[in-house]
Amino acid sequence: MRGAGRVNTDAPSVNGLAAPLLAQLVAQADRLRIAVTREASGLTLIDAGIAVPGSIAAGLQIGALCMGGLGEVRLAGLPREGWPTWLQVRSSQPVLACLASQYAGWSLAASKEETGGRKFFALGSGPARALACKEPLFEELAYRDRADSGVLVLEVDRPPPPVVIDKVLRDCALQPAGLAIVLTPTASLAGTTQVVARVLEVALHRAHGLGFPLHHILEGSACAPLPAVGADGLQAMARTNDAILYGGQVHLTVGGEADAARELALKLPSANSRDHGRSFGALFEAAGYDFYQLDGALFAPAEVWVSHVGSGQTWHAGGLHMGLLRELWQQA
Amino acid sequence: MRGAGRVNTDAPSVNGLAAPLLAQLVAQADRLRIAVTREASGLTLIDAGIAVPGSIAAGLQIGALCMGGLGEVRLAGLPREGWPTWLQVRSSQPVLACLASQYAGWSLAASKEETGGRKFFALGSGPARALACKEPLFEELAYRDRADSGVLVLEVDRPPPPVVIDKVLRDCALQPAGLAIVLTPTASLAGTTQVVARVLEVALHRAHGLGFPLHHILEGSACAPLPAVGADGLQAMARTNDAILYGGQVHLTVGGEADAARELALKLPSANSRDHGRSFGALFEAAGYDFYQLDGALFAPAEVWVSHVGSGQTWHAGGLHMGLLRELWQQA
Amino acid sequence: MRGAGRVNTDAPSVNGLAAPLLAQLVAQADRLRIAVTREASGLTLIDAGIAVPGSIAAGLQIGALCMGGLGEVRLAGLPREGWPTWLQVRSSQPVLACLASQYAGWSLAASKEETGGRKFFALGSGPARALACKEPLFEELAYRDRADSGVLVLEVDRPPPPVVIDKVLRDCALQPAGLAIVLTPTASLAGTTQVVARVLEVALHRAHGLGFPLHHILEGSACAPLPAVGADGLQAMARTNDAILYGGQVHLTVGGEADAARELALKLPSANSRDHGRSFGALFEAAGYDFYQLDGALFAPAEVWVSHVGSGQTWHAGGLHMGLLRELWQQA
Repeated sequence: MRGAGRVNTDAPSVNGLAAPLLAQLVAQADRLRIAVTREASGLTLIDAGIAVPGSIAAGLQIGALCMGGLGEVRLAGLPREGWPTWLQVRSSQPVLACLASQYAGWSLAASKEETGGRKFFALGSGPARALACKEPLFEELAYRDRADSGVLVLEVDRPPPPVVIDKVLRDCALQPAGLAIVLTPTASLAGTTQVVARVLEVALHRAHGLGFPLHHILEGSACAPLPAVGADGLQAMARTNDAILYGGQVHLTVGGEADAARELALKLPSANSRDHGRSFGALFEAAGYDFYQLDGALFAPAEVWVSHVGSGQTWHAGGLHMGLLRELWQQA
Repeated sequence: MRGAGRVNTDAPSVNGLAAPLLAQLVAQADRLRIAVTREASGLTLIDAGIAVPGSIAAGLQIGALCMGGLGEVRLAGLPREGWPTWLQVRSSQPVLACLASQYAGWSLAASKEETGGRKFFALGSGPARALACKEPLFEELAYRDRADSGVLVLEVDRPPPPVVIDKVLRDCALQPAGLAIVLTPTASLAGTTQVVARVLEVALHRAHGLGFPLHHILEGSACAPLPAVGADGLQAMARTNDAILYGGQVHLTVGGEADAARELALKLPSANSRDHGRSFGALFEAAGYDFYQLDGALFAPAEVWVSHVGSGQTWHAGGLHMGLLRELWQQA
Repeated sequence: MRGAGRVNTDAPSVNGLAAPLLAQLVAQADRLRIAVTREASGLTLIDAGIAVPGSIAAGLQIGALCMGGLGEVRLAGLPREGWPTWLQVRSSQPVLACLASQYAGWSLAASKEETGGRKFFALGSGPARALACKEPLFEELAYRDRADSGVLVLEVDRPPPPVVIDKVLRDCALQPAGLAIVLTPTASLAGTTQVVARVLEVALHRAHGLGFPLHHILEGSACAPLPAVGADGLQAMARTNDAILYGGQVHLTVGGEADAARELALKLPSANSRDHGRSFGALFEAAGYDFYQLDGALFAPAEVWVSHVGSGQTWHAGGLHMGLLRELWQQA
């Protein structure tokens, strides 16, 4: 196969492709049990699980929105491995979909002084990141979107303060009427769904951490079991992480050198972490609830296949740990 | 999670959402092998398996129509559990989709005197039920649709007589041009498909029978094996029932009390019935072909998971009985 | 079930139904990593893997295009049988979709003298075949499309010479602006995908070879594992064939006589071939790379279910040989 060029060649606009998905989300608000507010400024705020119940269907649509229209997020209601419901994610543009758009990498903070109340912190995800390009990752991706509208997804349980909204508008060079912000608490149906839909992104982020050249990643598909919504934010975070670390299965298709593909397969699964085998909840507690004490190698899918264009080989490593998940998630 | 309010809050219109699905069915009549007739009165009659062969594809679309546009009905051609083809059904509005729309609960009868020929009986299903609201169930649902068009699905092998059509129009407050009636004999490709697509509805109906508060049911997904079309109406009815009772798998997500969720999971599966383990055909024959002699607890899916929003728990009960299905359905 | 008439009754236009799918493919060229050229003559040439990388997503769309809009081609990223990614194909018009459109049966050759360079040979597939009707098969199908636009798919690694394009235009009675030709080398992401998407077509072609009356085939669904793209054309051909012969699972629904349905099920699987059990690559080499030395009975799916409308029976035969595929395709 020839022509596997730079990621940004004729790159599509993740915000442009997200716009019709956003319009659909807004049009279906009632049946998705979400609430859409148009602020006086023109800004669109979408509550997908704070004051409203939201839904799994909303989470699936937010997942696709978050991938900048370059990915599919679907639910498979065919029980397997003892669990009833699985999320499937796929993209033929996985680097743009997952890293330039879906990855929660844009740090948005405001101090008490700035908010005039509680301090605010969130990691912004979704296509608007590619308008702002505040993260070093975008230099590596050599991608910048220039759409005149944008969508930002925040995993929060309250709206961002005006100071944060102003910063987003400024960094994205958008008018308020061009920006939509989607709010999804982890402990909500839509929130849990859209976080588990990051199973492919977790694999790409880990591949990046392992130094695999991103422009060699051509295709990605993945699945993970969709857990019940956790009782609170902490349990919800544990559930969604465990879903990926112990139930995530990923298939990447890559170019480049065959040896690099093989090494990627072997190093990618979460079993490479010293912390593998213990639940996220137990590890997080043991780490004093300090995320940065956790081993980065753990944040990876459980089972991996890497197919290599050029040699025709496929390497397989890791495996599911459904016993642990059923023990954590299910009662007889 | 907050805000899980009454079912009818900002409730969508099941007939309004069904309208574009109906238009699609009509537009694709040829390739779906169905026949569409516009009567002189303006009424639309759709034959999906009486004088024409119909198709599984038609059955999938009729299934989605029957759920008032609030559910997805798909076929998975990935063999599992020894059976090649499975139906998947999903809804983030399962109570409206299944009980306010899909459930075959509207009794439509006409005597010999009224028809001037054979007496007629059918149980109407589909969104038009929510216009007429003739069943006590609608009071509990606190839902009434007010669309100016409607779709009714009848599992019959001949068109309804004029007296029944007039009654439907009157009860739905529709003009003939606003009503479409879809005819699907059980012993047809579309008929068998759309009946098995009721696997989620069967679970909701049973949950209702068990006294579980309907407004606590937030999400539902289900699957069941799609059997061959039975040789006649009786065998087709046996096949579609067995598909659900012994091959149906359902995942519900509910709010309310955790204990009620646990009890729902334990009581829901068909294994709770004294008649469980024998085929529908054998039971129906033993009951002298009197439906009302059969144990209502049998009409439930084989395997159930109930996830509870609030506690984060999932309960699991029941199991597949594929051995029985293969014995009934398949030759070596 | 009544009314299962001749295949061509109210037959849909495969090129007419393909037109919107073609428009979608063209509109999404960038994100599918394909290249669309409008020639001076008005002819549309789509390179899906020669000078550009193409994608699995392009292959899925080309697969659906190739089935004349009468089939669904989807990817399931739910690992099963030890392999991560499976293609699913389905049609409620399988004879038209697979044999009148998808089958690569139109021999398109040009000598050195005609091309003024290398000789050219390709087997044309896709809906344009049904405009030209140059194959005897079309008499049996009693089907001819009369659309004023057409789509032809060629599994080649260079564009067809002008002499071949002129022949296609003449035989299809099309103006250049009405013809689109899609080029997909087997050893490309889109090419491998669209070839494996022929798993249902292979079953229908074999049923035809066994003398089963085509007009009795009502429904078809199938799946097969999607292999990595082969290192070269020969390996890619071996991979895609093995995917179907040893990993293909097909479910047909047929009318006609029950005995004929039973016989079809028993005779259809590739295990009926004397060559079954050895990889396509080994067999092809042993045959001196002469396709016509290979046993035609081998070109069939691994596992088959045939459901019979009329008797309600389903017959099952054959089985997967995933061990062989994993040995050929995967490294530990």
